[in-house]
Amino acid sequence: MNEGYRSMWQNLGLDLVAHDALLGVLGKYYQDIFLAQKTRPAGMKYFDFVMSEVHGLRIKELLDEKNAGRKIVGAYCVFVPEEIVLAGNATLVGLCAGADFAVEEVEKLLPRNTCALIKSTFGFKLGKVCPYLEACDMIVGENTCDGKKKAYELLKDLVENLYVMDLPQVKSVIGKSLLKAEYHRFKSAVEQLTGVSITSESLKTAIRTVNVKRTAIHRLSYLRKADPSPISGLDALLTNQVFFYDNPARFADSVNKICDELEKRIADKKGVFPEKTPRILVSGCPQAVPNWKLPFVVETSGAVIVGEESCVGERGTRNLTDDSGKTVEEMMDAIVDRYDKVDCAIFTPNPERLEHIQEMVAAYKADGVIHYGLQFCQPYIMESIPVEKALKGKNIPTLCIETDYSMEDMGQLKTRVEAFIEQLR
Amino acid sequence: MNEGYRSMWQNLGLDLVAHDALLGVLGKYYQDIFLAQKTRPAGMKYFDFVMSEVHGLRIKELLDEKNAGRKIVGAYCVFVPEEIVLAGNATLVGLCAGADFAVEEVEKLLPRNTCALIKSTFGFKLGKVCPYLEACDMIVGENTCDGKKKAYELLKDLVENLYVMDLPQVKSVIGKSLLKAEYHRFKSAVEQLTGVSITSESLKTAIRTVNVKRTAIHRLSYLRKADPSPISGLDALLTNQVFFYDNPARFADSVNKICDELEKRIADKKGVFPEKTPRILVSGCPQAVPNWKLPFVVETSGAVIVGEESCVGERGTRNLTDDSGKTVEEMMDAIVDRYDKVDCAIFTPNPERLEHIQEMVAAYKADGVIHYGLQFCQPYIMESIPVEKALKGKNIPTLCIETDYSMEDMGQLKTRVEAFIEQLR
Repeated sequence: MNEGYRSMWQNLGLDLVAHDALLGVLGKYYQDIFLAQKTRPAGMKYFDFVMSEVHGLRIKELLDEKNAGRKIVGAYCVFVPEEIVLAGNATLVGLCAGADFAVEEVEKLLPRNTCALIKSTFGFKLGKVCPYLEACDMIVGENTCDGKKKAYELLKDLVENLYVMDLPQVKSVIGKSLLKAEYHRFKSAVEQLTGVSITSESLKTAIRTVNVKRTAIHRLSYLRKADPSPISGLDALLTNQVFFYDNPARFADSVNKICDELEKRIADKKGVFPEKTPRILVSGCPQAVPNWKLPFVVETSGAVIVGEESCVGERGTRNLTDDSGKTVEEMMDAIVDRYDKVDCAIFTPNPERLEHIQEMVAAYKADGVIHYGLQFCQPYIMESIPVEKALKGKNIPTLCIETDYSMEDMGQLKTRVEAFIEQLR
Repeated sequence: MNEGYRSMWQNLGLDLVAHDALLGVLGKYYQDIFLAQKTRPAGMKYFDFVMSEVHGLRIKELLDEKNAGRKIVGAYCVFVPEEIVLAGNATLVGLCAGADFAVEEVEKLLPRNTCALIKSTFGFKLGKVCPYLEACDMIVGENTCDGKKKAYELLKDLVENLYVMDLPQVKSVIGKSLLKAEYHRFKSAVEQLTGVSITSESLKTAIRTVNVKRTAIHRLSYLRKADPSPISGLDALLTNQVFFYDNPARFADSVNKICDELEKRIADKKGVFPEKTPRILVSGCPQAVPNWKLPFVVETSGAVIVGEESCVGERGTRNLTDDSGKTVEEMMDAIVDRYDKVDCAIFTPNPERLEHIQEMVAAYKADGVIHYGLQFCQPYIMESIPVEKALKGKNIPTLCIETDYSMEDMGQLKTRVEAFIEQLR
């Protein structure tokens, strides 16, 4: 990272010593996990650059936007509609939640039996190491799981600008009307924050901007169907992670450039692993930067990940928002329709998710599914039992993993993953 | 228990061997915990009888009701309005969830990291030892916490007649409209089950019936404010537990008889423990029959429990339902108003609960609060941290307990509780 960023980080109130330590670890970790891979697409260099500048250039860009009068909105969940944020002349960024930090301080506020993702949210704040969080003009929490909804009550005291969005628990007529009411309330909150009224033009442009980056990810996903796989699961996950951080148009261009390259690879029957390498679908909890533990283990154990049924993956990106509406009201309805389809385990019942996993297994020709559950994430861990049973009932080999962000179980994890992959050959 | 009940249990499909074992343990446990107490009110004999016949006479009564064409509705939560059930000519019973049973079978369906209450629900079903559950014509689940809402998806496959009620997560206008819609849907479901249309007369009568039993509990609670306390916390908890099982009118009469007796005791300055015995308010998760672990530990360690801020306690019973409405619609609104006030930790935010704890501390002259959390109950365990902080900030000594239904931590629990009580003297 550039020394010139230090005053920027200082102005944001970061703890420079802790932040240096974090960047040091992150850089080493990225080197060992990503740069050590072979035959990566050349287009991944852009993402290497993004990651090397993740707390540098991207933050500077956001601060430049702020200086130009634009607002920055941070979010922790795919239920926060980027369309509305963009239409209100603000920028949406995903907030840091993929690594343990300031654990001792965190466990004074949250029970030890809280999932790593929520603890991480607090750790980055308490440890003062997340420049995104500190750059935000508005931080959006959402009532998804019990852990998050109760945690936001405490986060409210740690940040100045928390906005909490309510969400339904059931996909019903009244559940959808709650979602609609909450999205309209959020639209007003964004308009109040930015002083910009959302118009049919700005909303249409915003919907198209977000659809363009989703479409680029769809193209990448489609290319992962090839055998040999033209891109590693690690690199594909990274693009899905950067989806939440980067400028949307630039992101879409960068993904499309990789796709051009992958199409050539496929035509040449080239891949990152040999043909017939066992193919894994990962399903379950989100994997936020820098949570690369599971794909690293899988792809250094003789298999390739071909898809992520996850918020950071197809659950978050698969549906486009209909942009054909003529009025703000019509397009807001289209946004509600689009997000109402997200098959998160917070919904009860949630049969669409099991259907989607099976569709993905077929589409990506996966040989097996690894269900990735964060310890103490009740919705996904509870769903993992019927999901595993249903998949095994369809002769789809399935392995349920329950883990956190620590490295202590790496050995055990590798043993289990290797045994599972062995069974797929 | 009476031998004559065996064919009744067999007809209900109970596992007689396992059920005998359960009743044996329960009887011994009741003897050691309740009957071993000194200077109990004579009126508690009724509750001893109820408990000795909890799987016998009460079940026979319910089956007699069924034979006479009445329906039995079972529920796991105080959000299921007894008023609607009674008005539809059905009987509401609370379902068994206070002891571990068939743990090995349960953990094939639910993660180990699930709270004891939910596991118990499944254990009683899988172990075939709950005659209430088997006698029900309708079992009502509700979307409170993540654990329960996801567990009902699985319970649906174990029982034939599960009905799931959705609940809001926020006390807002739209949250209340969801509650109202769900209570109207439930009213229709009860009417369909019983074939009886709810009228303004039947609803008014039902509201009054439930209010009468709540008022009896209020009278008992009021008398627990005296020092020395005229009744043990164990006995008072038991009446709060039987609240969910017994015939409402008979229950109210029995509680009122105890209250007559307690008034004399108070006039005579008689108590179950000496004057100036440290007084404890228990706050947190529900304690269902036969979960008497914490009050047993507290009251054999030199303190007396004077109140329960709990679903099985004041959170569940404190508010009456306004019976002044003239139409079904008006009274349904009154029911919605009443239940919307329940300050369960599933709501976010939930400041009313902290206020209520402080009110109870003052009203019952409690010297300290024990926060009772079931392990892996995210809503209450997460709320316990700010609650403890706030109470300590007001110089109210507070001890947070996190436990389950096993007896393994009895020694550790007793040590912690004794040290806490010592600090209150």
